[in-house]
Amino acid sequence: MTYVTRRETFSASHRLYNPAFSDAKNAELFDKCSNPNGHGHNYVLEVTVAGELNKDSGYVVDLKDLKQIIRKEVIEKVDHKHLNHDVDFLKGVIPTAENIARAFWSILQNKIHGGKLHSIRVRETENNSVEYRGE
Amino acid sequence: MTYVTRRETFSASHRLYNPAFSDAKNAELFDKCSNPNGHGHNYVLEVTVAGELNKDSGYVVDLKDLKQIIRKEVIEKVDHKHLNHDVDFLKGVIPTAENIARAFWSILQNKIHGGKLHSIRVRETENNSVEYRGE
Amino acid sequence: MTYVTRRETFSASHRLYNPAFSDAKNAELFDKCSNPNGHGHNYVLEVTVAGELNKDSGYVVDLKDLKQIIRKEVIEKVDHKHLNHDVDFLKGVIPTAENIARAFWSILQNKIHGGKLHSIRVRETENNSVEYRGE
Amino acid sequence: MTYVTRRETFSASHRLYNPAFSDAKNAELFDKCSNPNGHGHNYVLEVTVAGELNKDSGYVVDLKDLKQIIRKEVIEKVDHKHLNHDVDFLKGVIPTAENIARAFWSILQNKIHGGKLHSIRVRETENNSVEYRGE
Amino acid sequence: MTYVTRRETFSASHRLYNPAFSDAKNAELFDKCSNPNGHGHNYVLEVTVAGELNKDSGYVVDLKDLKQIIRKEVIEKVDHKHLNHDVDFLKGVIPTAENIARAFWSILQNKIHGGKLHSIRVRETENNSVEYRGE
Amino acid sequence: MTYVTRRETFSASHRLYNPAFSDAKNAELFDKCSNPNGHGHNYVLEVTVAGELNKDSGYVVDLKDLKQIIRKEVIEKVDHKHLNHDVDFLKGVIPTAENIARAFWSILQNKIHGGKLHSIRVRETENNSVEYRGE
Repeated sequence: MTYVTRRETFSASHRLYNPAFSDAKNAELFDKCSNPNGHGHNYVLEVTVAGELNKDSGYVVDLKDLKQIIRKEVIEKVDHKHLNHDVDFLKGVIPTAENIARAFWSILQNKIHGGKLHSIRVRETENNSVEYRGE
Repeated sequence: MTYVTRRETFSASHRLYNPAFSDAKNAELFDKCSNPNGHGHNYVLEVTVAGELNKDSGYVVDLKDLKQIIRKEVIEKVDHKHLNHDVDFLKGVIPTAENIARAFWSILQNKIHGGKLHSIRVRETENNSVEYRGE
Repeated sequence: MTYVTRRETFSASHRLYNPAFSDAKNAELFDKCSNPNGHGHNYVLEVTVAGELNKDSGYVVDLKDLKQIIRKEVIEKVDHKHLNHDVDFLKGVIPTAENIARAFWSILQNKIHGGKLHSIRVRETENNSVEYRGE
Repeated sequence: MTYVTRRETFSASHRLYNPAFSDAKNAELFDKCSNPNGHGHNYVLEVTVAGELNKDSGYVVDLKDLKQIIRKEVIEKVDHKHLNHDVDFLKGVIPTAENIARAFWSILQNKIHGGKLHSIRVRETENNSVEYRGE
Repeated sequence: MTYVTRRETFSASHRLYNPAFSDAKNAELFDKCSNPNGHGHNYVLEVTVAGELNKDSGYVVDLKDLKQIIRKEVIEKVDHKHLNHDVDFLKGVIPTAENIARAFWSILQNKIHGGKLHSIRVRETENNSVEYRGE
Repeated sequence: MTYVTRRETFSASHRLYNPAFSDAKNAELFDKCSNPNGHGHNYVLEVTVAGELNKDSGYVVDLKDLKQIIRKEVIEKVDHKHLNHDVDFLKGVIPTAENIARAFWSILQNKIHGGKLHSIRVRETENNSVEYRGE
């Protein structure tokens, strides 16, 4: 078993806001992250795939293919977008890094061939990140 | 003459859009940066001050003071904000990194004591940055 | 289960020295790290908490709270300090990165709410780091 | 159990090419990585050792020793080399990051004392990396 | 005057070797950099353009255009290549970082519109870099 | 003219303290940086040399030589040391980053051959740095 990781980046805006709560409760819960006009980040996405080595190629998965899958299925849909308004697969979801990581997992787990999706890491800032492993 | 640099970060959203132009022309000019709902970045700001060494302190300027000035005058006003809507000193300005750097220069040049503002660098992504030196 | 990581930094000095040993044996064991006047590092601390997602917030733990806990319980006590002399919870401990990580674990494991402390990583230099997971 | 990681770097060239295949099939499989004259990378190697703390030293393993072992057994043999032609332990191996990581594991697993080799990570570019844990 | 910098990366191999000298003299002069089979790097290229702000766009130059120019004129010709053998504009040049930077300058100085090429920085490793400003 | 930069690192402790002042005044001036037992940093040193290209080597200066000069003249004297107590050339100097940069300049300006020392940058933390150019 070998673990292969591809890193991609995207720039997006979001607002943390739960419509079931009042504005006051949202402000208390999410503080400056609930600013009505939103804010944004340069997100870093790290996708790790686990698998056996293919003897013919020396690859677990071809990182060029993995890059294309991640870009087509995820990056093109979130890069330079507002995560609350512009992204179908995040509709109705509070776009925290946790929820973003889980949504990416749902999309990518069936698109990876030759290995098994092992983890999705989303870095929101240089100090804050989350990882989801499908558990 | 010694140059002292303080680095700060902020997360904000913006939209590149010139109201004098049609939506079509904005889309042509700014491409995905003119997405109507905006997008965002983790901006990195580097403020450089030039000055003579103070013999008593061994400092050009006290970096603790410089940090407080940058945070009070700039960071608190742009962090977790939408640069097109929430920031007084960017009203009517297309919030490109170039214009952000110049706006920060205008604010900070009269607030720095003990040295002279030498340059403002704004890093918008890991690949794109601008620097303004008041020229 | 989702893993949330907060990164903090602190600057401190230390000396690797075991008082049970002679100076010669300390010099042999710890080499330049046992320099009598000490030396120092910009430490990077990464605290990872594991937990279930809270549906109302989309958070495992609120990273603003986690940041405050880490700063209050750990960073304020070690930042700009000498780890051998100034830190109560390191008294009698050789302040290797390994021991620092374990001491931070002891402090933080009962302070985290809403999730479970999963790992403490301490980066001493860009080339050397340790991780402790309570095992 | 504590995990200790040492980071080293080396610069090398390689060509991805399977001699069992035609040039056309190699080009299809490895694309620009099969350029006949090769290309190169600044590789980053991260070696993680797991073990119990030694009470006398506060170390799992002495990182100065670990550094010397990694440099002598691995780095000196691959740094400023062509991985297809100059490295005995990679003869007959397609030098993908996956195969490099496994080859390093084979070499290092018997050289580490005081702890157990836990993982080998090889970063080929800032976006691509692999990890092998002996599984 | 504002300075705009675009960062791009490429992976290439090279050998430092002056054909006017004996192998022994090359080995003495270039040491392990003259290894006959070559070695390689992940190069980082930083291109800085200086110019006046365009009022309509808030840009000095459109970074999307600058990216395309750098990729078409430079990156596509050196990425995943051997700099001694595969690159027309480096024929007969010892491919040190200094010479690479000057060759890139020669190519790019007439391709930039709307601003003036200010500097070319080539980072060969995390510790070694050169900058050329056309002086 | 081409600019060549070598990056080195060292780990040291220091205390900001002016013996001409009372402890109270030192505490006011230097705040937590005047902690009596000191603190420390992983310093990053960037030495830039400017010069004409040597046609035979394609070098301004041989970076292997520059590395050796910096390590022998500077790094070996400050690495894993206390800057207030262990370093001859810093005796009687308040070891701010500004003063460290100027002291390094004094040492290195006569040791560089084949080019002219252009700048010394000292990074004290990821947020604070100074540059001295001999002006």
